[in-house]
Amino acid sequence: MRRKEFGINDREEIEAFLREMEYGFLGTVDDAGQPRVTPLNFVYYNGNVYFHGSRIGEKMRSIAANPRVCFSVAKPFSQIPSYWIDPFLACPATVFFKSVLITGTAEEVADLAEKAEVFTALMNKLQPEGGYSPIDPADERYRKQLAGTAIVKIRVESMSAKFKFGQNWNDERRETITDRLLGRGHPLDEETVRMIGRYCPVHRDENE
Amino acid sequence: MRRKEFGINDREEIEAFLREMEYGFLGTVDDAGQPRVTPLNFVYYNGNVYFHGSRIGEKMRSIAANPRVCFSVAKPFSQIPSYWIDPFLACPATVFFKSVLITGTAEEVADLAEKAEVFTALMNKLQPEGGYSPIDPADERYRKQLAGTAIVKIRVESMSAKFKFGQNWNDERRETITDRLLGRGHPLDEETVRMIGRYCPVHRDENE
Repeated sequence: MRRKEFGINDREEIEAFLREMEYGFLGTVDDAGQPRVTPLNFVYYNGNVYFHGSRIGEKMRSIAANPRVCFSVAKPFSQIPSYWIDPFLACPATVFFKSVLITGTAEEVADLAEKAEVFTALMNKLQPEGGYSPIDPADERYRKQLAGTAIVKIRVESMSAKFKFGQNWNDERRETITDRLLGRGHPLDEETVRMIGRYCPVHRDENE
Repeated sequence: MRRKEFGINDREEIEAFLREMEYGFLGTVDDAGQPRVTPLNFVYYNGNVYFHGSRIGEKMRSIAANPRVCFSVAKPFSQIPSYWIDPFLACPATVFFKSVLITGTAEEVADLAEKAEVFTALMNKLQPEGGYSPIDPADERYRKQLAGTAIVKIRVESMSAKFKFGQNWNDERRETITDRLLGRGHPLDEETVRMIGRYCPVHRDENE
């Protein structure tokens, strides 16, 4: 990461973001060297990233050919128009965001009990209100489905995060932009203002 | 794509989605063969995907090492809980979405006039209300910035789209789910119902 002031090193902050976000983008390389990016629902569980999918698709062939993968989770926050900062130039226009980048190796989970546990974690995330029978390989209604659907585990080798909320701005500009965001009131503006309050100002000694 | 019924072949539908979406995920492979995924604002312009960035970052090094790239743009719509479809099993839980996958080759744009044109297209997309001086390399205030910031063009080699809105369901299930979505009223549910109406039922002959 070039701009150190946007780096986030607090593991709990990063994991909270991974729990909040329902989908991410898997990067793979197929056997011809072509990169592929696939949007996926996922769960971060026991320190690994898990997703599910068909056992016979292109994604599974890419992973079999090359298990080195990348996983990106990002959420855009408020767009900051250039004219809030400069009356003439377009250059200051920017977008705030949170972004986590993971690299690791992907492998299919074979054990049915582990698959059931991961599906349960995924359901807890995407359908927290429940409303289904426990996922159990001993249950005949689930056994065939569990066997026929792939669960892939990404063993995390590196994880880095960049949360951009004006940490490079001085207090005066940050206060001006905060006032403008509160006045504009677009859907993400209030949440963006909370994030500016949380991540600014940066104490550079902690991040470099 | 394995499931043909979700495929979208209407170029205008795909391009409208690319105009609506402000960001996508770039897939690259670095010189060690490691895939990388980077979230980016982008503009689809003159049949190419363009994005901007620092001239000295990791992304630019990856592209220089291997210009074959992938670009993914995806939007999740409503989550469909399993119990709307089956009272016992978790398996029917799903999420509707639109997703476009592009492959191509990336190259940095060198010509300042072309860079100014692309920056203008990007600003028209992200800040349509204007509020800045025209981006012009003859303008001294822009010249240095235009030279110092990279614009990358992805020459599109393939583009495919998958829009999933229950095209594999029968009329009865689709009507049930539509009623449930309208009753639930989560932020994306109304838009999801419009998409179900637009893309279902599929006339298989057109898509296979």
